[in-house]
Amino acid sequence: MMPTLYPYSTLRSFTEAVFLKMGCSPTHATMATEALLAADLRGIDSHGVARLSGYIRLWEAGRINATPSLRIVHETPSTAVLDGDGGLGLVVAQEAMNIAIEKARQVGTGWVSVQNSNHFGIAGYHAMLALQHDMIGMAMTNASPLVAPTFSSDKMLGTNPIAVAAPAGEQPPFVADLATTTAANGKLEILQRKEQDTPSGWVQDKEGAPSTDAHILKKGGALLPLGSDREHGSHKGYALGAVVDLFSALLSGANYAPWVPPFPAYVPMPARQPGKGIGHFLGALRIDAFRSADEFKQSMDDWIGGFRAAAPIHNEQRVMVPGDPEREAFELRMANGIPLEDSVVRDLHDVAAQFSLSLQHN
Amino acid sequence: MMPTLYPYSTLRSFTEAVFLKMGCSPTHATMATEALLAADLRGIDSHGVARLSGYIRLWEAGRINATPSLRIVHETPSTAVLDGDGGLGLVVAQEAMNIAIEKARQVGTGWVSVQNSNHFGIAGYHAMLALQHDMIGMAMTNASPLVAPTFSSDKMLGTNPIAVAAPAGEQPPFVADLATTTAANGKLEILQRKEQDTPSGWVQDKEGAPSTDAHILKKGGALLPLGSDREHGSHKGYALGAVVDLFSALLSGANYAPWVPPFPAYVPMPARQPGKGIGHFLGALRIDAFRSADEFKQSMDDWIGGFRAAAPIHNEQRVMVPGDPEREAFELRMANGIPLEDSVVRDLHDVAAQFSLSLQHN
Repeated sequence: MMPTLYPYSTLRSFTEAVFLKMGCSPTHATMATEALLAADLRGIDSHGVARLSGYIRLWEAGRINATPSLRIVHETPSTAVLDGDGGLGLVVAQEAMNIAIEKARQVGTGWVSVQNSNHFGIAGYHAMLALQHDMIGMAMTNASPLVAPTFSSDKMLGTNPIAVAAPAGEQPPFVADLATTTAANGKLEILQRKEQDTPSGWVQDKEGAPSTDAHILKKGGALLPLGSDREHGSHKGYALGAVVDLFSALLSGANYAPWVPPFPAYVPMPARQPGKGIGHFLGALRIDAFRSADEFKQSMDDWIGGFRAAAPIHNEQRVMVPGDPEREAFELRMANGIPLEDSVVRDLHDVAAQFSLSLQHN
Repeated sequence: MMPTLYPYSTLRSFTEAVFLKMGCSPTHATMATEALLAADLRGIDSHGVARLSGYIRLWEAGRINATPSLRIVHETPSTAVLDGDGGLGLVVAQEAMNIAIEKARQVGTGWVSVQNSNHFGIAGYHAMLALQHDMIGMAMTNASPLVAPTFSSDKMLGTNPIAVAAPAGEQPPFVADLATTTAANGKLEILQRKEQDTPSGWVQDKEGAPSTDAHILKKGGALLPLGSDREHGSHKGYALGAVVDLFSALLSGANYAPWVPPFPAYVPMPARQPGKGIGHFLGALRIDAFRSADEFKQSMDDWIGGFRAAAPIHNEQRVMVPGDPEREAFELRMANGIPLEDSVVRDLHDVAAQFSLSLQHN
């Protein structure tokens, strides 16, 4: 079945209405909507409106606070720890980034570690908030454990993404946004729907043996760190995921390692909670705290142009710059609409019914 | 042939004498020696004393300035750009880290991007300089092009390593230090000596076809980014290597992408030089700019303990924490000496002869 195309404006007003019904302030509802739908627009379907009902279930279970009082717990001129008060990570991360940007304005860089938050959508969206200020943005988050460290059968880390966004001049910005695993969980979900196996090197079974079963996570298996196995550098992907955990949770006082709260509301909370909620880490670096922003952007254009001109191995696969695929999806979907699978549409209609809203489609 | 064991003290006094003969100040000679031999002590043989003659050749070729005047080109309370004046990266990076540490003392974090430097040895050594100050340290550097981005046959990036060091309490510190490639060049050199092939997924030939030839770099081939191929996330390793280039060179005004100067002095300089020398990026985050250092260290102990207790897949392969293998090598080599291949020993004797020194061995 072909997915149905929904205009961005339709999904936007619907999603905003849902967040308002949850009790979010108008400002927070708008912020949450923009962060959530940025995933759909950028082609990362797993993290967008398909998760709206998941956020609602967490709110119903009392695991998301729709009216949080954000509070800076501790700060210095270039740093802060923000308590998200159990709010939507979609909102909390943006507030944290705003603090980082303000600090960068003052002293060159700003770094905010966040405790007591929830899932924040795609890391790239938050990192990109810095771009309009001629700053480099960074965003990371920890997440519930799906990933086994090298040599282990235990799931100890989340997919713990890292995003870095840097402005260019004539060229579009550089936006790297990557889970520190070989494959993100969303890619497994696509294979599950198609009843296909995974490539080798993506997952292992509950004993830690290699597997290609796209359903293996439900059977006690785990995602593999970027690098897949020791011989191909999985210890590096594991180390990067660990660094994200340190910055997001150990610096802030959030839960870490296997004790990060799960996204599905039906999964019980971990028995132990060494910290508060989920942790993020947001950073902003003012370009002209290092050199003139114009010079930097000229160099970025030159850098990007160099990579676009690199020789392709196959003519049909051109060399891309981080951010290219997502930007192409953005342009297509803004113009033509966002494709939603039938299961997602049904889910959204259930959400509509719950809140006496309607999901219009023209 | 078994490698010969040399006591650290022997190699230390010899290396220091060589740097003094090059004209380094006593302070710089000590700093360079400690950074260089940290690689040997930590088991990263490719980056240690085996490269001493390489540094000398660069100095002879006028590509390393033994008496640099380091200069802060631009700064804010949390940032600086340092001009390394063509000095030894081994020294310049430490001076940059000292600036970052001082800024972190003042405003919570410090970030120094470095232009006009040279190869700095192992990233982990520089990151670890922050530990004694109860700070998290970060170190990155770009390097001459050996790595092809996903879908390309052109070498566009260096192995561009990232290191992050964080203190713990009872446990030893967490030290991640990783090239953003599937395998570092040093691993190829080991296979070359043994006349063995590489595993699949480490290198490609000059057309971009998969290869297992450990000599392929000399034949126009390339190292592959962490992830090996698109299906296993090589676009992520490429993005991480690119981020290192942006922070190290685009922020500082150093050379970037395929225009980074080579390490071997017999390789001509790139025809184009869009910046100055090689670039690094050093960062220091004061723990108590976020939360009490004691609390952080207790959490780190808990985190590390959790990973050490994770179930191993095979009993003979215990789960490690980033920094464990290097620390074990350090302890062994401090106690028993540093094993040097015959070819390295011969090379050091040539160096000794050149400078009228002797490499004693007991």
